[in-house]
Amino acid sequence: MSAAARPRVVIVGGGFGGLFAAKFLKHAAVDITLVERTNHHLFQPLLYQVATGILSPGAVAPPLREVLKRHDNVKVRLGEVTGFDLDARTVHVEHPASARDLPYDFLIFGIGVGGSYFGHPEFAPHAPTMKTVEDALTLRTRIFGAFEMAALTRDEDERRAWLTFAVVGGGPTGVEVAGQIAELAHRSMDRNFREFDPSSATVVLFEGGEEILPTFGDRLSGKATHELTRLGVDVRVKTRVTDVTRDEIVVSSADGEERLACRTKVWAAGVAASPLARSLAEATGAEVDRAGRIQVLPDCTLPGHPEIYVVGDVMALDGLPGVAEVAMQTGIHAAASIKRQTAGEGDPRPFKYRDLGSMAAVSRFRAIVDFKGIRVGGFVGWMMWAFIHLTFLTGFKNRFIAAIRWVLSFVGSARTERALGWDRTRATFASAETRPPDDS
Amino acid sequence: MSAAARPRVVIVGGGFGGLFAAKFLKHAAVDITLVERTNHHLFQPLLYQVATGILSPGAVAPPLREVLKRHDNVKVRLGEVTGFDLDARTVHVEHPASARDLPYDFLIFGIGVGGSYFGHPEFAPHAPTMKTVEDALTLRTRIFGAFEMAALTRDEDERRAWLTFAVVGGGPTGVEVAGQIAELAHRSMDRNFREFDPSSATVVLFEGGEEILPTFGDRLSGKATHELTRLGVDVRVKTRVTDVTRDEIVVSSADGEERLACRTKVWAAGVAASPLARSLAEATGAEVDRAGRIQVLPDCTLPGHPEIYVVGDVMALDGLPGVAEVAMQTGIHAAASIKRQTAGEGDPRPFKYRDLGSMAAVSRFRAIVDFKGIRVGGFVGWMMWAFIHLTFLTGFKNRFIAAIRWVLSFVGSARTERALGWDRTRATFASAETRPPDDS
Repeated sequence: MSAAARPRVVIVGGGFGGLFAAKFLKHAAVDITLVERTNHHLFQPLLYQVATGILSPGAVAPPLREVLKRHDNVKVRLGEVTGFDLDARTVHVEHPASARDLPYDFLIFGIGVGGSYFGHPEFAPHAPTMKTVEDALTLRTRIFGAFEMAALTRDEDERRAWLTFAVVGGGPTGVEVAGQIAELAHRSMDRNFREFDPSSATVVLFEGGEEILPTFGDRLSGKATHELTRLGVDVRVKTRVTDVTRDEIVVSSADGEERLACRTKVWAAGVAASPLARSLAEATGAEVDRAGRIQVLPDCTLPGHPEIYVVGDVMALDGLPGVAEVAMQTGIHAAASIKRQTAGEGDPRPFKYRDLGSMAAVSRFRAIVDFKGIRVGGFVGWMMWAFIHLTFLTGFKNRFIAAIRWVLSFVGSARTERALGWDRTRATFASAETRPPDDS
Repeated sequence: MSAAARPRVVIVGGGFGGLFAAKFLKHAAVDITLVERTNHHLFQPLLYQVATGILSPGAVAPPLREVLKRHDNVKVRLGEVTGFDLDARTVHVEHPASARDLPYDFLIFGIGVGGSYFGHPEFAPHAPTMKTVEDALTLRTRIFGAFEMAALTRDEDERRAWLTFAVVGGGPTGVEVAGQIAELAHRSMDRNFREFDPSSATVVLFEGGEEILPTFGDRLSGKATHELTRLGVDVRVKTRVTDVTRDEIVVSSADGEERLACRTKVWAAGVAASPLARSLAEATGAEVDRAGRIQVLPDCTLPGHPEIYVVGDVMALDGLPGVAEVAMQTGIHAAASIKRQTAGEGDPRPFKYRDLGSMAAVSRFRAIVDFKGIRVGGFVGWMMWAFIHLTFLTGFKNRFIAAIRWVLSFVGSARTERALGWDRTRATFASAETRPPDDS
């Protein structure tokens, strides 16, 4: 422990893990610095609703400073951690226009994970992932831009390619985004075009495994497939994606290889931790798993470093899934352990995950839910989904705004958040393009 | 008139002029093509609330296709008009990935105006205007980014420069944005920073003329100045801006020259029509005024071209101001005239402007209003301002969302729409950065 009057806790990342750790330490006698590359937390489970025009970015991205404004022991700093000195107990932080080494007595590392293209980084520009607000806005621009492009072409094949949407990955994100693109085409775009019928759009969901949403069990998985099919989504399981180009997606299944002309693709398969995670693991002798996640000890710390906690998606422990619930609970676990350590109440205890279940909203008013062993689908599932998401969405205002948007989008058919412009000079669609303050 | 069964009306621009023209022609026996560079109308009077984090872009940018979906005689096409052939009666439209010459029997030209730097285009990167959704998001990123930068520096002078905001131009836009930046600093950012007190930020409003909001008369102008001063805005009249650099703004007044260290500037002074407007004017022998706006005949048509109407901000007629009200009324006038012309009911009549007054919201619950000669300020003015803006905001959903956001932002203090990220590799703040579909 340093000579400082109060132990210094550095939290890297303001996601579910880092934010819940900071909140848990509200009345603890520690000084916290939370370092984040963005100025906001991100409610990732609803990010697909930004990509499909239902919610505005602000509704899922509450400002960290605002969320933590009554936490007097927390300082929020915009920056990116790029290295460590574990002996000196400092993290190296690059800020816009400056850099510094930030000393810590305890470190909570929860930077999340990015998307993985399984060794095919060349797919990335053609099939964005959906991890950040920027990703979601990129996708939103592409999805709504594709309908505009379809209206402008007179070539039927090209129009078909613009009206074909491929989603790769049958987990909750893939299912949710496929369902919402289908609803968009079939309901929200109604009467929007004179040149073609938007409901003629095709949405294809590709999943390499035996079924979509495998963790939900056969019955709910079947229910989700049924529901997606009813919406017009073509669900293709046991199908691997072998190539992605600007104009095509190539897949392989028992039926052989197939090339699909398709301009808009969404990548919702696989995750990969950043090189920073690997370097932290190597510095401590911890292993990383295939996705680059850091293998932690049962108490979420690293070997020989009871002062370093790894939480959330970037942590590998007992095969726990990369979901918000695990991140929140590990964040709170780390915070509680630090409280005990600083109070001299003994060593950290093993982390115990309380599995509350998982859920996915297949379409409006239809969700499948596995909650504490209760497995339900349909409208009852959707009500549970909506209730739980509103409960966990940070901030009363965001809850309120999201609830109202849902009424407008689901009872009505509004997709109000879809502004895009075309910049002829740069030949680009832009939902918003910004300059750095330093560039000004 | 062409040989086509129904007269073809081409509307260039989906602003207040173009949109209201299209709407007015709902049941007319004409075929309308509306060409716009963006996919949305823009409620410009509330754009400053996007720049200051109160409203999401979608709230002020209703999709044109959605607004016009029950107008079966209207086709919306995303593209930019780049030229004319007035003899052949075609406009040349560049679309993403294609181009075509669009024939018309009647043309309604309402592309609006851009910002003007009075011969100093080099000011532009340092002091953005606020004309488009992208502009507003650029400003939003700079404003919220400036507070982040202020938190990161240890140099007091640099911090002061980041916490100094200059607004150039004392018209309604300048007054409104200055007022909202001040409220942001003094109220909304409360407790957000440990490094400094956000209410120590300085907002300076520069106006070259004798007073701000001169068209409102001395009493209301004085009231607005009083209100802004109460909010902490430094109102500097009879002060001309002579230079704008990355780090400074230089002004000149009776007191001599002054250099103000200031990183964030907003340009709300002066407008300029695009070169396209000039080329249309030249082709018809019409004059342009100093701002490049097209001098029209009393019926809003061009000399020798009773089939071409110019509407909205890009039109110059009798010194009418460039406000939404004029644009709406000229749009409707053009549409009504075309209806009469196609019905063989005679030539266009002169345009008569019904001045309903003007208004500016100085701060929450305070607006000054000059409505049909009734001049009021304060809370009564604000109620009128809110009522009229909600009435004219296109679409029930946007009205509803805006009203709720105002409650959250003005009764509460929320600025929920302020997500920004920092991209270290590109050393840029981004609220959202997107790629063109064609790039994918």
